[in-house]
Amino acid sequence: MAKPLAVALGDPAGIGPEIVAGAWERRAAEDLPCFFAVGSPEAVAAVWRGPLRIVSDPDEAEAAWDEALPVIRVEGPADPIPGRPTIDGARNAFAALELAVGLARTGAASALVTGPVSKAQLYGVGFTHPGQTEFVAERCGVAADMVAMMLAGPTLRTVPVTTHVALKDVPDLLTTELIVAKGRTAIRGLRRLFGIARPRLAVAGLNPHAGEEGALGREEIDVVIPAVERLREEEAEVSGPHAADAMFHPRARGGYDAALCLYHDQALVPFKTVHFDEGVNITLGLPIVRTSPDHGTAFAIAGRGQAQPGAMIAALKLAASCAGRLGQA
Amino acid sequence: MAKPLAVALGDPAGIGPEIVAGAWERRAAEDLPCFFAVGSPEAVAAVWRGPLRIVSDPDEAEAAWDEALPVIRVEGPADPIPGRPTIDGARNAFAALELAVGLARTGAASALVTGPVSKAQLYGVGFTHPGQTEFVAERCGVAADMVAMMLAGPTLRTVPVTTHVALKDVPDLLTTELIVAKGRTAIRGLRRLFGIARPRLAVAGLNPHAGEEGALGREEIDVVIPAVERLREEEAEVSGPHAADAMFHPRARGGYDAALCLYHDQALVPFKTVHFDEGVNITLGLPIVRTSPDHGTAFAIAGRGQAQPGAMIAALKLAASCAGRLGQA
Repeated sequence: MAKPLAVALGDPAGIGPEIVAGAWERRAAEDLPCFFAVGSPEAVAAVWRGPLRIVSDPDEAEAAWDEALPVIRVEGPADPIPGRPTIDGARNAFAALELAVGLARTGAASALVTGPVSKAQLYGVGFTHPGQTEFVAERCGVAADMVAMMLAGPTLRTVPVTTHVALKDVPDLLTTELIVAKGRTAIRGLRRLFGIARPRLAVAGLNPHAGEEGALGREEIDVVIPAVERLREEEAEVSGPHAADAMFHPRARGGYDAALCLYHDQALVPFKTVHFDEGVNITLGLPIVRTSPDHGTAFAIAGRGQAQPGAMIAALKLAASCAGRLGQA
Repeated sequence: MAKPLAVALGDPAGIGPEIVAGAWERRAAEDLPCFFAVGSPEAVAAVWRGPLRIVSDPDEAEAAWDEALPVIRVEGPADPIPGRPTIDGARNAFAALELAVGLARTGAASALVTGPVSKAQLYGVGFTHPGQTEFVAERCGVAADMVAMMLAGPTLRTVPVTTHVALKDVPDLLTTELIVAKGRTAIRGLRRLFGIARPRLAVAGLNPHAGEEGALGREEIDVVIPAVERLREEEAEVSGPHAADAMFHPRARGGYDAALCLYHDQALVPFKTVHFDEGVNITLGLPIVRTSPDHGTAFAIAGRGQAQPGAMIAALKLAASCAGRLGQA
């Protein structure tokens, strides 16, 4: 039987604790894989009246699963207040992430699911990575530019080549090498984690109408087309560069398994337009499976019963399905 | 009774003739306003076996409407071949556009609808404007930067501040003045043409997460926020800058009447993701109403019976509705 999933709760003052608890409540209806939370039980108890079971390892978590939400305790604020992030809470989120990554790396957990954290808070407690993705990559011994972030939803997957940088810096950051590296990671991730033997990758252009043969920008000719040609050496169907505005309507989405996008919003705008409430962020290129609901801490609504567990449920399901494929490979 | 609409057929070798004929066929089912085509009757006859009536003015068009597609003849290629653009065809498209604009300007037609043209072809016959929008603006005596392009669909309207320029040039082109000018045109267009007394305008940020207070780019702070503040002096509800990736899901779209976007794909990617087959391009800031289906000449499928008239039908309906409002104002 597959090992349970390790779910880092994220910031204890965010919506992480309540959406993890909400997912456990729906474990039967959603046919969820067994998982355990890693973090502050007090943070869960502050927003949820259901049964909690403090466990010390994944085996105990499996035994508890039917009756209570299993939690591996990571010491946190004694009296956490939903919506009020604190330094102690950030330390707790950091420590929970570290422990959950470790359990996934050793194989004690079959995959890692991370709840939402506040980067601003984490930076205050010595977290030096741009985000959780880079932290997990480092702990797994993988260089950050060899991993790629994929947004995965029921009808669309997108992979941004550049991520959290100012738009004006994007053209200079884009190199043929970087597009090829992210494209390869995307293709291999589709094969290993999604079971697609011959992935179809659609590469976006940078400029309006993909540059109109140079009239509206030269990056397609100078940088993107050479990358597409090199990616065609992979066992995959690679197309593009495509005009981004013609890539994301329903018929177009049926033509590829993932869209390789050149900047954050080119990937995130169409993705969130169609899959706002059910989007999963999955890190490709790691030796472990790591997913995350594609939303933030939502401090403004934490503890008010408004947070929806849909994206967390989707992240759990995708993690289990990818872990199953990785185990067979 | 309202005057008929003038419909320039666009390039005679493109899909313009067949989608105009297709719209006329559905005039009863779609409850279309009376319109007449301006262009080459031979181009229509080459792709359509229905009844044509050559007319010499809008009054004759109204008389013919029930029985035949009225066409005001503009001399074109004697034997046009669908899918094969020619210099003579480009001259015909140019002349038809000129005549149709004139009929709308004089009030003989209540609005102008333009079919798809090939800019590359038009440039070969002395057309010096970037596109039909700028041409129509000039003929109406309005400076090009005082008009704005709006993409309008059933659940979303977007207005790009910059349009057909390379992405790397966008940050330098964006000024507070330009954003204010386009925003004002959008607000006034929503009021005059769409009948929205107090328009809600959502302004997008340029950078990921709208710059995260400067961490991911300074344009929001230096350029966009001052523009939003000045736009708040209008009779309107102006919000932003918003993170673009959170602006376009169905619930978010319900919160504004139009999204003011900073570059081509920021406006066009979400719009075409949700309204690919029914999108209308409407020019705001003109003394006349001008709409256009939001697609190209599609030479590759011209004459094959594959072109769908949906966007042309939507352009005709929107033109009539806006002309009705403008007439009352």
